[in-house]
Amino acid sequence: MPNSKSMPRAMRWAIVLGAGAILYFTPFAGLAPAQRHLLAIFAGTIVALVLQPAPMGASVLIATTLLQLTGTLPPAKILSGFANVTVWLIFTAFLFARAITSTGFGMRVGYLFVEWFARTPLTLGYSIAAVGVALAPFVPSDTGRGGGIMYPVTQSIADAFDSKPGPTARRIGSYLMLTGFHTNYPASALFLTSMASNPVMAEFAARIAHVNLSWVNWLRGSILPAILTFTLVPWLLMRLSPPEVRDTAPARDLARRELARMGKPKRQEKLLMAIMLGVMIGWITSPWHSVPNTFVALAGVCAILVFHVMEWDELLGERKAWDALIWFAPLVMMSDSLNETGVIKTLSSAFFSRLHGVPWPLALAVLVIGYLYIHYVFASMTAHALALYPAFLAAALACGCPPMLAALSFAYFSNLDAGITHYGTGSAPLFYGAGYVAQGDWWRIGFILSVANLAIWLGIGPWWQRLVGLW
Amino acid sequence: MPNSKSMPRAMRWAIVLGAGAILYFTPFAGLAPAQRHLLAIFAGTIVALVLQPAPMGASVLIATTLLQLTGTLPPAKILSGFANVTVWLIFTAFLFARAITSTGFGMRVGYLFVEWFARTPLTLGYSIAAVGVALAPFVPSDTGRGGGIMYPVTQSIADAFDSKPGPTARRIGSYLMLTGFHTNYPASALFLTSMASNPVMAEFAARIAHVNLSWVNWLRGSILPAILTFTLVPWLLMRLSPPEVRDTAPARDLARRELARMGKPKRQEKLLMAIMLGVMIGWITSPWHSVPNTFVALAGVCAILVFHVMEWDELLGERKAWDALIWFAPLVMMSDSLNETGVIKTLSSAFFSRLHGVPWPLALAVLVIGYLYIHYVFASMTAHALALYPAFLAAALACGCPPMLAALSFAYFSNLDAGITHYGTGSAPLFYGAGYVAQGDWWRIGFILSVANLAIWLGIGPWWQRLVGLW
Repeated sequence: MPNSKSMPRAMRWAIVLGAGAILYFTPFAGLAPAQRHLLAIFAGTIVALVLQPAPMGASVLIATTLLQLTGTLPPAKILSGFANVTVWLIFTAFLFARAITSTGFGMRVGYLFVEWFARTPLTLGYSIAAVGVALAPFVPSDTGRGGGIMYPVTQSIADAFDSKPGPTARRIGSYLMLTGFHTNYPASALFLTSMASNPVMAEFAARIAHVNLSWVNWLRGSILPAILTFTLVPWLLMRLSPPEVRDTAPARDLARRELARMGKPKRQEKLLMAIMLGVMIGWITSPWHSVPNTFVALAGVCAILVFHVMEWDELLGERKAWDALIWFAPLVMMSDSLNETGVIKTLSSAFFSRLHGVPWPLALAVLVIGYLYIHYVFASMTAHALALYPAFLAAALACGCPPMLAALSFAYFSNLDAGITHYGTGSAPLFYGAGYVAQGDWWRIGFILSVANLAIWLGIGPWWQRLVGLW
Repeated sequence: MPNSKSMPRAMRWAIVLGAGAILYFTPFAGLAPAQRHLLAIFAGTIVALVLQPAPMGASVLIATTLLQLTGTLPPAKILSGFANVTVWLIFTAFLFARAITSTGFGMRVGYLFVEWFARTPLTLGYSIAAVGVALAPFVPSDTGRGGGIMYPVTQSIADAFDSKPGPTARRIGSYLMLTGFHTNYPASALFLTSMASNPVMAEFAARIAHVNLSWVNWLRGSILPAILTFTLVPWLLMRLSPPEVRDTAPARDLARRELARMGKPKRQEKLLMAIMLGVMIGWITSPWHSVPNTFVALAGVCAILVFHVMEWDELLGERKAWDALIWFAPLVMMSDSLNETGVIKTLSSAFFSRLHGVPWPLALAVLVIGYLYIHYVFASMTAHALALYPAFLAAALACGCPPMLAALSFAYFSNLDAGITHYGTGSAPLFYGAGYVAQGDWWRIGFILSVANLAIWLGIGPWWQRLVGLW
């Protein structure tokens, strides 16, 4: 829905309420009224997240209230999303992201990588990709990482080359913006904790497919495809949008100047690094100590507070974290309930019945490709994943697809789908909106890279995941 | 702990951790290790709320993490406080308070009451009391109401009389500050929703005493004692700290000027008034429609957002609400767990065993008086209530006290206890800190009023509550 923001608010409300009302009142074969009402309120909420007639938090609060007033779910169930372990993992990760940004640690990493690796435009591209990867385990938001760290770094480098939107765009700016964007969302696919919706999908996977997408399993499945993507993308973009400059000295000079201006790492940055290292060790070793990821992260937040890396008051001012808590928790609860009450199963078998009898590799391919390109109508990776992941996963299972393979494939493509448009994720309007790349080019390149991603993550990925024994 | 803030941070940490460690490791007759560990972490948290070695939210997050790392409670239980209906009622009430303050509606009510009723210093005192009462159902915080609305109004009136701390304090300033303070916390006792800890006590009462402190029952029990208090207190303060001025024209002039400056009520204020009226009707009629208070309030918040009385972004900036969510929810969960696991019962019978055999009216009197004056060591009404309400209620029940009477008495005195010191609640440092009243006077008057409150709420209250059929 590229132009939803330009649609009058009243019309957007009309579409949201209309869609909800139709589902609410129209009988659907196989669904009891209570199931249908839940589906209607959930679908209305997803449409509201896409069209945004009101801020996401407000839409979700309205949905929450409606669930009670219509008697669709009992009060304790409605609020249960706020006690969800996964929701709090995401919440704490937002606090880490805040610490990374506010201590200046993120920008330092950005410029360090440029100083170290940017010998040619291509290695400059790789160093931008490396920034995203380095920060990904702790910044659970494509938008936060892209908008808060990678975009500012990329923009300053473009400025250092005096490459502006317009005649000088192709000097290096358009290449840098494309590289920043197209290496950011694959970084979201790399770690369980690099995107808010990833742990939620892990939870769905556990309930629907009964497989354990732990922090380590997620990474085992993604590591080779991710290496291929990060190797290919900057190189491919050199072909698709070649920069005119060959000498990257100005970028390294800029990085050196910025690092000099920042001075030595502050006490807080060092502490933060130590804490993040500890948290990551905690996540990786979780099979042995069995402390849930959330509480490992929470211990990290406590350390951040106790050692004054960040003050409590600053944490209270982290609106993104609170926003995510409010709009995420009820959605996760609704998705869970749809699944528990059997709605997903009914819908999935109704819509995907034609796939029955098709060999599972073909069925999986069809489903993943459909799942990827349906993102042309979504403006949020999270809304897409929450709305469709359970149904597509159920459909793949019904076709006999190995559970772990299906769970991983849709999970990775829930992140890779972000690249096809200039509105498909929160960071897209930033990199696109910088003005270096025309819309036609943006879509063309986005499509080409989506094919590359299919080749890597659907063509090679499953063999790799088989090799490491995930299925 | 009046001087906790002046104690070095390390010493405060040492006391918190020491107290917790002693309880954690010292066997206690009748308590299993898991029960003792829970009690230790809870007690340590309460000590931390009083001594504040770290902000309350940070202390509570540390406790939350420790509960998991020590294996004291399962993860789902630890987070369950965040799905508590009562916690969300408190959260939404903070948003109402924000709307009341940010639309200017609160200040308008303040000055209107002064303009209408302030004919003499005594009626000026009554109009200040009326402001508190009028706002109480929607501002669930003694500190919020006192600090955000009543203190600013009171201070401006004192300024209008040119009454400053020092020689001119007794002109009217000291009387106004005392009246503002000593009519604010009884307003917290008046409604279920006028103080954050009230709904939590209602929940305890339901679990421990099996009585229903609904919004209406709470008010039925408090209405007559509250009328007596609000009639007596401004009059008594006229005797205890008589103002020198007799003519209140300057106060009315100020109110008129301020109201003229504010202009006609804004669209938002009118909408807010309508929404608050609707919410109050929803609360009062809840026995008929059985929508829980929380969802009535949530519907009000939705209306506030839909009609743009307040924007989502402003709501996200309401730190007090988020702070309360974080520090409140785990504490409520811990209190609940202490009760569920039988710790409260064991402790209560250990500490209050001597009261057995005493006639219940005497036992209740002893317990209430003890509960009231133990507040000399507390800096927060909420910490006091969360820590001691369940144990004192259980003790009263063990002595044969009628459950509803006991539940109400401790609930009301959980608010009335705030008046005895200049640090017993968040608004006290404000009214006291204005500098109009010397510390000796403050304590002396606080003690006299506590005796008056005992006479009214413990002497007359039970008869009234009997008369209206509450027990």
